[in-house]
Amino acid sequence: MNANRKYSAFLINVGSCSDRFCSAYGPPFTVERLFARAGSIDLLSGVDLVATDDTLARTGEIKDLLSAHDLKAVSVVPDHFTKPEFKQGAFSSTDARIRAQAIEATTRAMDFAAEVGCDLVGVWPGQDGYDYAFQADYLTERDRLADGIRQACRHNPAITVAVEYKLKEPRTHNYVNTVGTTALLVQEIAEANCGVVLDVGHALLAYESPAESVALLHRHGGLLRHIHINDNYRSWDDDMIVGSVRTHEYLEFFYWLRRTGYDGWVTIDQFPYREDGRDAVAESAAWMDALEGALDATDADEIAAVLARKDGVEASRLMRRMLFGDGRGAHGMERTCEPILASTSR
Amino acid sequence: MNANRKYSAFLINVGSCSDRFCSAYGPPFTVERLFARAGSIDLLSGVDLVATDDTLARTGEIKDLLSAHDLKAVSVVPDHFTKPEFKQGAFSSTDARIRAQAIEATTRAMDFAAEVGCDLVGVWPGQDGYDYAFQADYLTERDRLADGIRQACRHNPAITVAVEYKLKEPRTHNYVNTVGTTALLVQEIAEANCGVVLDVGHALLAYESPAESVALLHRHGGLLRHIHINDNYRSWDDDMIVGSVRTHEYLEFFYWLRRTGYDGWVTIDQFPYREDGRDAVAESAAWMDALEGALDATDADEIAAVLARKDGVEASRLMRRMLFGDGRGAHGMERTCEPILASTSR
Amino acid sequence: MNANRKYSAFLINVGSCSDRFCSAYGPPFTVERLFARAGSIDLLSGVDLVATDDTLARTGEIKDLLSAHDLKAVSVVPDHFTKPEFKQGAFSSTDARIRAQAIEATTRAMDFAAEVGCDLVGVWPGQDGYDYAFQADYLTERDRLADGIRQACRHNPAITVAVEYKLKEPRTHNYVNTVGTTALLVQEIAEANCGVVLDVGHALLAYESPAESVALLHRHGGLLRHIHINDNYRSWDDDMIVGSVRTHEYLEFFYWLRRTGYDGWVTIDQFPYREDGRDAVAESAAWMDALEGALDATDADEIAAVLARKDGVEASRLMRRMLFGDGRGAHGMERTCEPILASTSR
Amino acid sequence: MNANRKYSAFLINVGSCSDRFCSAYGPPFTVERLFARAGSIDLLSGVDLVATDDTLARTGEIKDLLSAHDLKAVSVVPDHFTKPEFKQGAFSSTDARIRAQAIEATTRAMDFAAEVGCDLVGVWPGQDGYDYAFQADYLTERDRLADGIRQACRHNPAITVAVEYKLKEPRTHNYVNTVGTTALLVQEIAEANCGVVLDVGHALLAYESPAESVALLHRHGGLLRHIHINDNYRSWDDDMIVGSVRTHEYLEFFYWLRRTGYDGWVTIDQFPYREDGRDAVAESAAWMDALEGALDATDADEIAAVLARKDGVEASRLMRRMLFGDGRGAHGMERTCEPILASTSR
Repeated sequence: MNANRKYSAFLINVGSCSDRFCSAYGPPFTVERLFARAGSIDLLSGVDLVATDDTLARTGEIKDLLSAHDLKAVSVVPDHFTKPEFKQGAFSSTDARIRAQAIEATTRAMDFAAEVGCDLVGVWPGQDGYDYAFQADYLTERDRLADGIRQACRHNPAITVAVEYKLKEPRTHNYVNTVGTTALLVQEIAEANCGVVLDVGHALLAYESPAESVALLHRHGGLLRHIHINDNYRSWDDDMIVGSVRTHEYLEFFYWLRRTGYDGWVTIDQFPYREDGRDAVAESAAWMDALEGALDATDADEIAAVLARKDGVEASRLMRRMLFGDGRGAHGMERTCEPILASTSR
Repeated sequence: MNANRKYSAFLINVGSCSDRFCSAYGPPFTVERLFARAGSIDLLSGVDLVATDDTLARTGEIKDLLSAHDLKAVSVVPDHFTKPEFKQGAFSSTDARIRAQAIEATTRAMDFAAEVGCDLVGVWPGQDGYDYAFQADYLTERDRLADGIRQACRHNPAITVAVEYKLKEPRTHNYVNTVGTTALLVQEIAEANCGVVLDVGHALLAYESPAESVALLHRHGGLLRHIHINDNYRSWDDDMIVGSVRTHEYLEFFYWLRRTGYDGWVTIDQFPYREDGRDAVAESAAWMDALEGALDATDADEIAAVLARKDGVEASRLMRRMLFGDGRGAHGMERTCEPILASTSR
Repeated sequence: MNANRKYSAFLINVGSCSDRFCSAYGPPFTVERLFARAGSIDLLSGVDLVATDDTLARTGEIKDLLSAHDLKAVSVVPDHFTKPEFKQGAFSSTDARIRAQAIEATTRAMDFAAEVGCDLVGVWPGQDGYDYAFQADYLTERDRLADGIRQACRHNPAITVAVEYKLKEPRTHNYVNTVGTTALLVQEIAEANCGVVLDVGHALLAYESPAESVALLHRHGGLLRHIHINDNYRSWDDDMIVGSVRTHEYLEFFYWLRRTGYDGWVTIDQFPYREDGRDAVAESAAWMDALEGALDATDADEIAAVLARKDGVEASRLMRRMLFGDGRGAHGMERTCEPILASTSR
Repeated sequence: MNANRKYSAFLINVGSCSDRFCSAYGPPFTVERLFARAGSIDLLSGVDLVATDDTLARTGEIKDLLSAHDLKAVSVVPDHFTKPEFKQGAFSSTDARIRAQAIEATTRAMDFAAEVGCDLVGVWPGQDGYDYAFQADYLTERDRLADGIRQACRHNPAITVAVEYKLKEPRTHNYVNTVGTTALLVQEIAEANCGVVLDVGHALLAYESPAESVALLHRHGGLLRHIHINDNYRSWDDDMIVGSVRTHEYLEFFYWLRRTGYDGWVTIDQFPYREDGRDAVAESAAWMDALEGALDATDADEIAAVLARKDGVEASRLMRRMLFGDGRGAHGMERTCEPILASTSR
């Protein structure tokens, strides 16, 4: 099991955030400063970009900044979520003009991606959904959602269009909500360049085990194309520093990425409302590095053997050993490492 | 939109329950008494049966009781969840003998169903899942799960085998967990007699809108074959009286059943730990009848028109009108019923 | 049980909203337009105001607008949540200057309230809390929180200072989080003019029954001073139209308000991101009117008798009767209304 | 900060479990075998006992077993939750005879405790609560709950009676539900021997930070008298192996126990449905030992200094260092350890 650290972050993550109460928790940053800040993080070798109108208008400048800071453009995300015209849905809108705009936003992002040397567009249909019962015609809107993304895919088969799911927010119910419905959607779209973005925080929010979601996407057609990563308390998309809330799920997640041969990027995607954004990203990268280090130090066959035995106590021991090694907590280990069969004799 | 009240209940629902603390909240009932109790509820015309060893051993008696109480056997559920041998998984077990037992439990339930005049078997793989990170090989176990159910399906193509999903419990993570992964599983199994059981409480637990799940199963191949119904507070499978917690989601659910042409049964499936089981089932049936009555009184075209406008205020008005009619709360209606366009002028 | 409809709304509720993705879902409104919109809703007789700097600077104008639209100023809320200086806590800040600002914001709001003829200030310490483990000194910060609010209370004993609790958001963990800790805080502050604001949505978010929280606040010293109301799906503060998600909890809530002799206001407090704000408030008021109408039509002694019997089936019947009356769902009622004792004989 | 490992476990934890589906996941064990199994775990020096009728009848035998295995009786829990007569409440029952039984169960447990050399009784009023709206008279029932526990306390002032809270289960709503309402209850009971049991899993279930709950109980009168510990995914009381799901919350929890001078026991309380119970307890003890080892290795003043700075990035760094030390993940540390001020200059 060899290490593979292709870490990136959304450029805006090293800047400032707002929420529905406070419109600016920190100062604004110029694009130049954002690149400089991202570039100052040793463990990062790429950035992901949101294709706002402003960004699209500055393609040349962005190419230069990528080059100047030796950062790869990892993915480009069309803006389907900041504009009020998409508030009742982008691809699934009841208004044909809005649907056309949603597709165009995607194809423009694809073109921009091609120009900045990136072959991956991440689509997050965050406004496609509903809030109230009796608010939506689920059949018609889903047809439109699939059609729209399919049309965008056909614009340029050389660009991967990966769809990101999230259970809720900004709608109380988003259509592209869980790993299962997203796989169904991508299968229905049936374009070779269509796949899935797995956001670890979104998986946690949906009570998925991110590791199992990796396995599922692998199993149903090799659909995993990109990863966003952040941490949360599982009941909301808190978008916190990676590893600051949980450890075991990350260890298992990175194990399954390796197990299924994922060779793409892992992009930090967080909202450091009250923290310095650059430091929060650096901290996430350091956690990932440490967690992957713990995996590097563990024999993959040993892990596979534990999985095959399907025993909770052994799983717990394995995780404890990965974090604390054999020299720590040895007192307890000594006894519990007796063979299960012996210990279960009564 | 014509009314269609095919209401059933699990036979054991009119009996007594236990939980992990109290092994018997109420007295035991004989099978005869259970049938008499179910038969005393006017709105019920069927019962669903769990194929425990004891039930399988009394096929003739049960046929007689069904006939005596004029109740149809609506579905039969193989017992994959009460036996300790299945504790680490039935179809997905790491032990080939356990997997064979899981299949055999299913085929025996299919045979029993055929004998009691029932063409529907509901499979709930409640023990197929995991509790801890690093406890399971997600790829291998999913293969086995799909293989096992497929083999059972092939035993008798005349019996529908419908798979029931639930996010969690008894495992902290069940494999067959959401509408999306269950549709994927059934598509993978690829047998014409394989479909899905939608348990409304399980859908709520997974933060699904049950109505949207109906639409999704309809859209992805007409997969909906059976319905279990009960109520809960959305964070656990509380299995309460239908309609005792929520109303709007049920109205929308019954609307979408009608809209998608569902002509199967709706089976009450609850755990009335502290209530009289017969009365709790009767109460659920009365709620369903009242809620469907509210739908009967509402023009389906009017509902469709509201859905097509995608407006939360109109959705709310529609629900308010369905519950309170035009004669109630008229004071407020008067103002809010002004045309949206006029009221939104600034 | 006589009807008492003292309904108000936050003035900004009839305007436009933002969230962390979209900075403006709707157009901006002038204060004059907001008052005109609020004034156009027949069921409203008051408004609640957030004491932003802009509002404080326009005291005279606001007095005129209140008068012109015949609206009472129901409560004033100091701004402890939109300014970045409070991002790591207002009253509980580690910085003495910030704590002084938090107190001053409160006393200025109290003065403003007095000027506009209002005797109630609602304090929401939304930024007082923490996000990460090991981020806060819980003892020191709670001392400061209590001290700060106490100092504000002493500024003017004629103004009630009511503290609003919320489990989370904008922090992942707010200090003033549940009905219990809030009652403890108010008891510790020990000023006669200090009490509690109960936000129904926040109670739901904390898995409280709002009705039980009313009873608790009544029981522990008559602490309830104000109510905010809105609806949600229980796992986030969705701030939706009242009654659009749940009905029974509202019926029970209004019952307990009457039962405990609450004679204050009920203030609509919602975020209609995608709806017309005025219409969404009007809709909430219409729901409350309809729900209170259902209570008006039910004998309070009958309700008390049901509560005293502690039976889930009877509770369910009562709720069903309140919504559907005796003429609806009669088929089911007929059987289930048989005496419990008879039906439970086996 | 000196280490203090007073670890215990519920005796039944080393046996077998049931849930509402499966009545026996494992084989039965005699009391002798349970003691032998508990006694085989080096890190345990006590056991906690549930005062079932069977246990109460075997006082002498249990004293001998405690002595033979050199285990201290840490706490005794009266049985208010396994008997159907308490199904609608024990202390708060509407039936005076049931309330008397609830008190008597407590005083008998107190007498038993005294006999086996234990001065702590833990009361868990798990059936005191409600399931449905309109099912309970919250005022009357709370009065009875407080009265009943107070009467029990007065039975023997030398025995501490500590009340355990839990948000829900077996009721959908338990009265003694969160740290705040429990502190209010104990203050109302106002007996010197009355305090609180903090179950870490229950705190997590209620979206509390267990560490903050420790601080709160310390602050409001030194109410913390006992601790139950286990792990879960935060949305249900999964009662899993300690440390198998989360690490940081435990580190912070043990820190605050030390910080507030807690010198009581930490009792493992879990439901190892599918695991060998003895091994699962041993595993929990090993995790606690390892986590406390990480705390032992960290300077308490350094932790206090981080808390006082109220910065999420520093909190994250501290947790990372506690788990991985300075030699691990050094690559990332190097950059992120630059002073915050420098890194936040733009």
